[in-house]
Amino acid sequence: MEPMSGPRRPSALDPTIAARLKRDEHGLFPAVAQQRDTGQVLMVGWMDDEALHRTLTTGRCTYWSRSRQEYWVKGDTSGHVQWVRSVALDCDGDTVLVVVDQVGGACHTGDETCFDAGAMPAVVGAPQTAAPRDPDRTRAGEPVEESDPAAETLTPAP
Amino acid sequence: MEPMSGPRRPSALDPTIAARLKRDEHGLFPAVAQQRDTGQVLMVGWMDDEALHRTLTTGRCTYWSRSRQEYWVKGDTSGHVQWVRSVALDCDGDTVLVVVDQVGGACHTGDETCFDAGAMPAVVGAPQTAAPRDPDRTRAGEPVEESDPAAETLTPAP
Repeated sequence: MEPMSGPRRPSALDPTIAARLKRDEHGLFPAVAQQRDTGQVLMVGWMDDEALHRTLTTGRCTYWSRSRQEYWVKGDTSGHVQWVRSVALDCDGDTVLVVVDQVGGACHTGDETCFDAGAMPAVVGAPQTAAPRDPDRTRAGEPVEESDPAAETLTPAP
Repeated sequence: MEPMSGPRRPSALDPTIAARLKRDEHGLFPAVAQQRDTGQVLMVGWMDDEALHRTLTTGRCTYWSRSRQEYWVKGDTSGHVQWVRSVALDCDGDTVLVVVDQVGGACHTGDETCFDAGAMPAVVGAPQTAAPRDPDRTRAGEPVEESDPAAETLTPAP
């Protein structure tokens, strides 16, 4: 297990939310920004407790810069603001999804998303055994997939 | 700057792709799985070079388990396979987006996504100054947003 950690910097984040977070050893977790109407995945940034607090309370996405070791509010320099629409924590508390209305391109290159120019050659899977998605099928009597990320919460860091 | 690193394990990943990756100090980077038709962000897992190689070449998503320190192929235990549709690297090479066809719920809880149960109270931003998105506006003459994650590539790790 990678070392997980508590917050590294002071934060006004609601303690009940802070208690659900699983941070890496730098006190950080990834945050996915998704455009509300198109569903586009715009970018992935990093947050700590206080960046999440500011994102939850100011209406604009705030991230932690790993290179500069400081907070940055998306759009403060470029004008390409991310207006927060909703925020959700994932099942094991180590990733945040922020649904936004993005002003301008999310990427510093001017692209709409940071993934627009990065397509890689991939073998497309052949779902010959795929059934229609049926969440109900998974709710009862099915073992937790031991290789699921959420199962990692069963083995907390020392 | 957090320490970035080379691959930690042997991999058959195409060296031209490997050269574009920016890994954390454990040789890992986050991978966002998105449902092809609905656009739902399903989950975020972790990959190293070899997990990416397997994802690109087998048609199914493979991740690295941080808790068990081994590869896991999504759906091998639960049947909830992720069939790969496309894979893209982000602009600064430290995140992957995998568009998939998800069989069953992506979450070990049975939910369709790992974010379904995690909504947090958030102030909704007021985009009173928001113009319609116009990527062209951003292409010429605009400085790189210095607080953008991609700008972090301007300050490489020592």
